[in-house]
Amino acid sequence: MQLTGEMLIGRGSVEGHGDAMRAVNPATGDELDPPFPGGTQADVERACSLAWAAFDAFREMPLAARAEFLDKVAGGILEIGDPLIERAMAETGLPRGRLEGERARTVGQLRLFADVVRNGWFLDARIDPAQPERKPLPRSDLRLRNVPVGPVAVFGASNFPLAFSVAGGDTAAALAAGCPVVVKAHPAHPGTSKLVGLAVQKAAAACGLPEGVFSLLYATGNELGGALVADPRIQAVGFTGSRAGGLALMRIAAGRPEPIPVYAEMSSINPVLLFPGALAERAGELGRAFVGSLTMGAGQFCTNPGLLIALEVPELDGFIQAARDALGAAPAGTMLTPGIFQAYRRGVERLAARPSVQEIARGQLASGANSGQSALFSTSAESFVDDEALREEIFGASSLLVRCRDLETVRRVVEDLEGQLTITLQMAESDHETARALLPVLERKAGRILVNGWPTGVEVAHAMVHGGPFPATSDGRSTSVGTLAIRRFLRPVCYQDVPAPLLPTALHDDNALGIPRLIDGALERT
Amino acid sequence: MQLTGEMLIGRGSVEGHGDAMRAVNPATGDELDPPFPGGTQADVERACSLAWAAFDAFREMPLAARAEFLDKVAGGILEIGDPLIERAMAETGLPRGRLEGERARTVGQLRLFADVVRNGWFLDARIDPAQPERKPLPRSDLRLRNVPVGPVAVFGASNFPLAFSVAGGDTAAALAAGCPVVVKAHPAHPGTSKLVGLAVQKAAAACGLPEGVFSLLYATGNELGGALVADPRIQAVGFTGSRAGGLALMRIAAGRPEPIPVYAEMSSINPVLLFPGALAERAGELGRAFVGSLTMGAGQFCTNPGLLIALEVPELDGFIQAARDALGAAPAGTMLTPGIFQAYRRGVERLAARPSVQEIARGQLASGANSGQSALFSTSAESFVDDEALREEIFGASSLLVRCRDLETVRRVVEDLEGQLTITLQMAESDHETARALLPVLERKAGRILVNGWPTGVEVAHAMVHGGPFPATSDGRSTSVGTLAIRRFLRPVCYQDVPAPLLPTALHDDNALGIPRLIDGALERT
Repeated sequence: MQLTGEMLIGRGSVEGHGDAMRAVNPATGDELDPPFPGGTQADVERACSLAWAAFDAFREMPLAARAEFLDKVAGGILEIGDPLIERAMAETGLPRGRLEGERARTVGQLRLFADVVRNGWFLDARIDPAQPERKPLPRSDLRLRNVPVGPVAVFGASNFPLAFSVAGGDTAAALAAGCPVVVKAHPAHPGTSKLVGLAVQKAAAACGLPEGVFSLLYATGNELGGALVADPRIQAVGFTGSRAGGLALMRIAAGRPEPIPVYAEMSSINPVLLFPGALAERAGELGRAFVGSLTMGAGQFCTNPGLLIALEVPELDGFIQAARDALGAAPAGTMLTPGIFQAYRRGVERLAARPSVQEIARGQLASGANSGQSALFSTSAESFVDDEALREEIFGASSLLVRCRDLETVRRVVEDLEGQLTITLQMAESDHETARALLPVLERKAGRILVNGWPTGVEVAHAMVHGGPFPATSDGRSTSVGTLAIRRFLRPVCYQDVPAPLLPTALHDDNALGIPRLIDGALERT
Repeated sequence: MQLTGEMLIGRGSVEGHGDAMRAVNPATGDELDPPFPGGTQADVERACSLAWAAFDAFREMPLAARAEFLDKVAGGILEIGDPLIERAMAETGLPRGRLEGERARTVGQLRLFADVVRNGWFLDARIDPAQPERKPLPRSDLRLRNVPVGPVAVFGASNFPLAFSVAGGDTAAALAAGCPVVVKAHPAHPGTSKLVGLAVQKAAAACGLPEGVFSLLYATGNELGGALVADPRIQAVGFTGSRAGGLALMRIAAGRPEPIPVYAEMSSINPVLLFPGALAERAGELGRAFVGSLTMGAGQFCTNPGLLIALEVPELDGFIQAARDALGAAPAGTMLTPGIFQAYRRGVERLAARPSVQEIARGQLASGANSGQSALFSTSAESFVDDEALREEIFGASSLLVRCRDLETVRRVVEDLEGQLTITLQMAESDHETARALLPVLERKAGRILVNGWPTGVEVAHAMVHGGPFPATSDGRSTSVGTLAIRRFLRPVCYQDVPAPLLPTALHDDNALGIPRLIDGALERT
């Protein structure tokens, strides 16, 4: 199939009239065909108006039909076959294996959300039956279910061209909730976006969905994205990207006549705590495994371990030595875009230039274009606490080891951290008491606490939390990965004494859908 | 017991150094003793610092102990006995029967949340067991539970001196979630607040809770409340009051270095739709019942029916006639404060002065101080849609009937509404199809849809939603009444491969707490 540069608005293909964007192969610096002309305010208007028109009908489709749509999107993505992987490789510099894995995750994610829709937990259906004889006042019949919030704007992420882009986590969760989605494609991978977008558009048509359940827009600057978030028909926003970008969207959303929730996943340095017992047991192994996590995918993960916090025990030297050796052998990785590469290089240079920071090791020198040399530095706990610049995320394979004199200092460093997506403990049984004392702090600071693993690699599951207190995300009450993500796009509605023929099926007495429900607060027996 | 004017900060009584506030008996205009000197920034600092210090210990208390604390608060409120009712009557002008009912609701609400805590649903506990043999990659052991967000600032509401004030819905939900609470007392009922505050303080001491789980502050202006919302240790805000007040708190919260959620319940005119079938069946009865709901408690409910939307059928005259008669006989009601009374009078005058508005009836003339004369007006659908001033909430017993030529006009009027707490349908079986066509719009506009009832009187239950799209509340994804309110003060944390001895009890394999949990997404068999 010949890839062409139109946007997808409802059932149509629409040629943009704004500045065109072109993908760049970061490994070669070459521009890729075709150009993708950006949309204008009129395209936002059209996409939002169609999404709004589709909303009422889409959300009241039977759960089975909505699930089938998600399954069809998954199937459609697989059907594109190798051209999708090849285009994504060219646009991102990511290797085939990684992208095939990411495709599997994306497809699995859509199918998992199809299961979530069929299961019906997400409706949080509740019935408190009437009590006409109650004194002093009778009780009405009260029934509750969740409804979708409305059309959702999704911003594709640079670092997951499949799993957190056009049909990625945010889109899957929003569609599963019953919300139409308007995606702003990430400018780094417009072709990949288009291929996936066509699969979604085709699945929507095959399922006979109302036009407007899905649209895909392009834009070079920030204007179109801002207009999308400001559009009165958009009711929530999903975003994964920089802190500055997330904060800008939060400001626009909060400044609307009707403010809306923004789920922005923005910034996290994912501290790893090295406890003495773990170092005594396996310092060398830890050093090597750490470098594996740090350099995976050129460090371009939201959960990349950008910070190590360790007690200054003699065994720490073994960790440092092993990490130095492993990093020294680590090849430079092609980064996603020239912009990300430049920002990484500047970030590493800035960090290296701080007087309080010492270099431990650098990875192999870069060879190709946009090739990021990994780096590991160290500093003292005192410098780390005093110098805010040391706590900023550097997106890429750079990390900083903070040396702590004693456990009290470890606690002070952790207490001083901003909100994080993850905090990892490397520990042995002898470290349990130390870890136990720190756990309450960790729970306040992060959405996920890991023991003896590495934060990269986020499982799509029921018990996953990929979220965390600000500024890791704009809303620490939610997750962007896993089935719980659907809750971000729902709100409860109560039906009081509504006659049976007018009640939604989920709340009928007979529970024909067979979904889990609470009756007077206890799970219904079926 | 002699009532004195100190604030309650942690275990102590603290004399304020700001301007003193005094309650006014709205029925007489008399000032009541004692004066309550307001707090300063130093008191906010002290209360928040204690709340923060208490947080980790309080949230990890056994669920049974937390539930016992809520039960003890309930018992303590009852133990105050008649002095609480008498003080509340003097401070609010509300009659004894209403306040005794409100006390029962407040106590029942605390006990219901104690049950919620014991039950453990709110933890949303989930376990996805490890799959060490999975290909291509093994799966880690993932466990999830909700943790409380942190200290919560609660602003007492003027119109529910017990049920939405010091130990009201917001406080009960926050404490149940495991969050320390700092209350800013409403200046209209400082004595009632103090009596209830002492009961909470005493219960906290009796349960051996860490100091700082509860504090109660006074202030005359907005400064202290603003400082409280801005304090970095406060992690969420509960507020019931005016739109201007709620918006101001939202701005402060959004402007913090770390933004926090604000749950503000602000403004709703609670439309009642009169369908032709209902009017044909019982126009007179509806007119009388409507006036009953409108004038109850001098109309000072968030869910007061401030708007009627009706088709211009001949039977509408019967409704109007009955409402006119009933309203003409309705005595003026003492309003909560001179300020609320003045605002009501101005609001009614403004509405009456609009050229497009006709008076249908007024209630009996006011006699005592701060006594609000109820009022009913009518206007055309066209004027209503054109004139934003007609859509503003007038807090008190005033309502506006919007006459609609046809069903399409009804739909247009409803589509044009802002977000509401409630929308009510008065209908007969012959109106079902009309109602069905409107339901999707109603679900988008309101948190609760009622049929053949009246919006006043909010049941505290599992299936209740007292919330709704902006500006009814600042966050339509939640409710401030009912057990679901606890979710506002929770956030999920995932534990990945955390060794059993370090896991929270709720996530132990043996489920010793006997709480409901999802294992791989399906309810655990126990």
